Amino acid sequence: VLHVTWDAVTAEKGGYDHFMLKEIYEQPKAIRDTLAGRIKDGIVDLSQDLSFTKEDLKRFDKIHFVACGTAYHAGLIGKSVVEKLTRIPVEVDVASEYRYRDPIITPSTLVIVVSQSGETADTLAAMREAKKAGAKVLGITNVVGSSVAREADEVLMTWAGPEIAVASTKAYTSQLIAIYLFGLYLARVVGTSTESQLAEATRALLELPGQAEEQLENPEPIRRFAESIAKHEDLFFIGRGLDHAVVLEGSLKLKEISYIHSDAYAAGELKHGTLALIEEGIPVIALATQQPVFDKMVSNIIEVKARGAHILGLGLEGDQELGKSVDEVITIPKTLPLLTPPLAVIPLQLLAYYASVARGHNVDKPRNLAKSVTVE
Amino acid sequence: VLHVTWDAVTAEKGGYDHFMLKEIYEQPKAIRDTLAGRIKDGIVDLSQDLSFTKEDLKRFDKIHFVACGTAYHAGLIGKSVVEKLTRIPVEVDVASEYRYRDPIITPSTLVIVVSQSGETADTLAAMREAKKAGAKVLGITNVVGSSVAREADEVLMTWAGPEIAVASTKAYTSQLIAIYLFGLYLARVVGTSTESQLAEATRALLELPGQAEEQLENPEPIRRFAESIAKHEDLFFIGRGLDHAVVLEGSLKLKEISYIHSDAYAAGELKHGTLALIEEGIPVIALATQQPVFDKMVSNIIEVKARGAHILGLGLEGDQELGKSVDEVITIPKTLPLLTPPLAVIPLQLLAYYASVARGHNVDKPRNLAKSVTVE
Repeated sequence: VLHVTWDAVTAEKGGYDHFMLKEIYEQPKAIRDTLAGRIKDGIVDLSQDLSFTKEDLKRFDKIHFVACGTAYHAGLIGKSVVEKLTRIPVEVDVASEYRYRDPIITPSTLVIVVSQSGETADTLAAMREAKKAGAKVLGITNVVGSSVAREADEVLMTWAGPEIAVASTKAYTSQLIAIYLFGLYLARVVGTSTESQLAEATRALLELPGQAEEQLENPEPIRRFAESIAKHEDLFFIGRGLDHAVVLEGSLKLKEISYIHSDAYAAGELKHGTLALIEEGIPVIALATQQPVFDKMVSNIIEVKARGAHILGLGLEGDQELGKSVDEVITIPKTLPLLTPPLAVIPLQLLAYYASVARGHNVDKPRNLAKSVTVE
Repeated sequence: VLHVTWDAVTAEKGGYDHFMLKEIYEQPKAIRDTLAGRIKDGIVDLSQDLSFTKEDLKRFDKIHFVACGTAYHAGLIGKSVVEKLTRIPVEVDVASEYRYRDPIITPSTLVIVVSQSGETADTLAAMREAKKAGAKVLGITNVVGSSVAREADEVLMTWAGPEIAVASTKAYTSQLIAIYLFGLYLARVVGTSTESQLAEATRALLELPGQAEEQLENPEPIRRFAESIAKHEDLFFIGRGLDHAVVLEGSLKLKEISYIHSDAYAAGELKHGTLALIEEGIPVIALATQQPVFDKMVSNIIEVKARGAHILGLGLEGDQELGKSVDEVITIPKTLPLLTPPLAVIPLQLLAYYASVARGHNVDKPRNLAKSVTVE
């Protein structure tokens, strides 16, 4: 008798144990597909996607990112990226707060809503309020024909393909890519970055899919660390600047599927209270990819180490320093500081995944959560 | 033989077991003293404190609050208050992030730094960078002659008196009062609120000291709840709008002195991930004082309840609804929604205090923390 050991679902998972792992591994393709056709001769060109005129784009004097959950974390990266490239002030809000806080919106405000499904109830409601208040709305979504795609004034699609696991991975990295593209496109129009800066960033952007592949090549060290934290009920992530935004996402992933209670702190804030929680043996994951704050970050790591934490440091390839103050090191391929997040998030996604597996949870369908939150 | 059972330190504590409890109970006086002499004929007048001309004040088109820890949480309230009253866009940053994120500062940017001691290293560094970049700096501090008091362009003192306990209480409420005063003062100059709105808010402000006394009258229910959570290692706070900013502070207090790992979530964000952490019996503290989002907040409470959480609800006096969906209720005297935070924080301070006592920790000097963080 021939036993067929795979079924339709396994086949859909392409040989992976879970949709989440499959989707983590699809990120190089998702990044590549989201970049495709949008860079011509080394220059970001979104004129096929967006009908904004140059005058429209030059008129914006304020940008609001509005989103929920993981997409909100993409918005946090968006603030750094867009402010840095364009010098236009950017705010980021969770949609369920934005709707009710009476935000200051003028006709020169651009509201960027980010939603994988394009159906997130609070995000839709915020989008509609923003339009009513006179803002232009740009939607970043993964689903053609979704409410965001239909109702936003302009749409920038992510091409991550269907995302099945409740915990979002490839949708997030694709959102980041869409944000980089928009930031670079806008920066060229408003003339705030030099040609050589834009060219350098665009070249680095094109290297990300290959670097993401490289990042995914050897998951063993992160799998081992994940197994070592599986018995803990509490742990912490720390980071500064863009790294803080990335660890917020890493912490959310871990909470969603492993049910380990984790928090992500801006490392410089530890001394203002939360350092009290650090005790002997508690795992701390420290992301240290941002060169301008690297020394400060190492000081923060040393403080945490002094209280007995067991520290996994994530640093850039070639960094010789981080290893001296942490217990274990995982490296991230080197790119521009601004472009590190889509690479740095990958080990954190894998950490959440392997911790969930080690704890025996339902990775793809965590308790209490739905894939798209279509109720308020 | 006569045994003298008090010593100099007990005497300093004015009969309270700890400085923190004494300072919690000094809040009505701290609020009163911070208001004193700054309201004339029902109108907020800071012309004795600040030398800004009307033209100076009208010129500001952007305000940044910059602070650390508890003072940062005061800044979060500041954003809501100042935006609502003046319609000037406000950003809030932790000082250790602000310094390095290359913020957009122009000569029409007002940077408000908040620091109890006036010596917080990151806050001082941020203040100096902001001045160098051309911003005007307003300092809110509790210490005359401190670096913030000396170096800021303008200073608005809080009159909380010396704060000894590491966990800040009366300094925070006094910072809120200073922020309300500045917001109301600025709003009159820029003409964004009506006279009757300003008069109503000013009247309500003057009632806060008496209402804070009322709030402090019966700590028994919160003491009992604190004892019930003392055996837990994890719990959550939830709130929406201003309530979210207040529970962030409540959660920090609890972490600082009880070492219970707590988190404060924007209630509308729960469904986007952290709801996975809610399991049978976990304590959740829900602050529900903001009328415009009250129904939404109750929906969020019901979701958490459905997963088995044990919920303490904090609602306004006279509210008949909250009690139907939570396990225990503590009430807060009724004031304007914008002015609720200095009252709502009091039971959360008491919660942290009694939980720390029940767990046998050193309330006034928690592990790993210093009163003023004068190193970076």
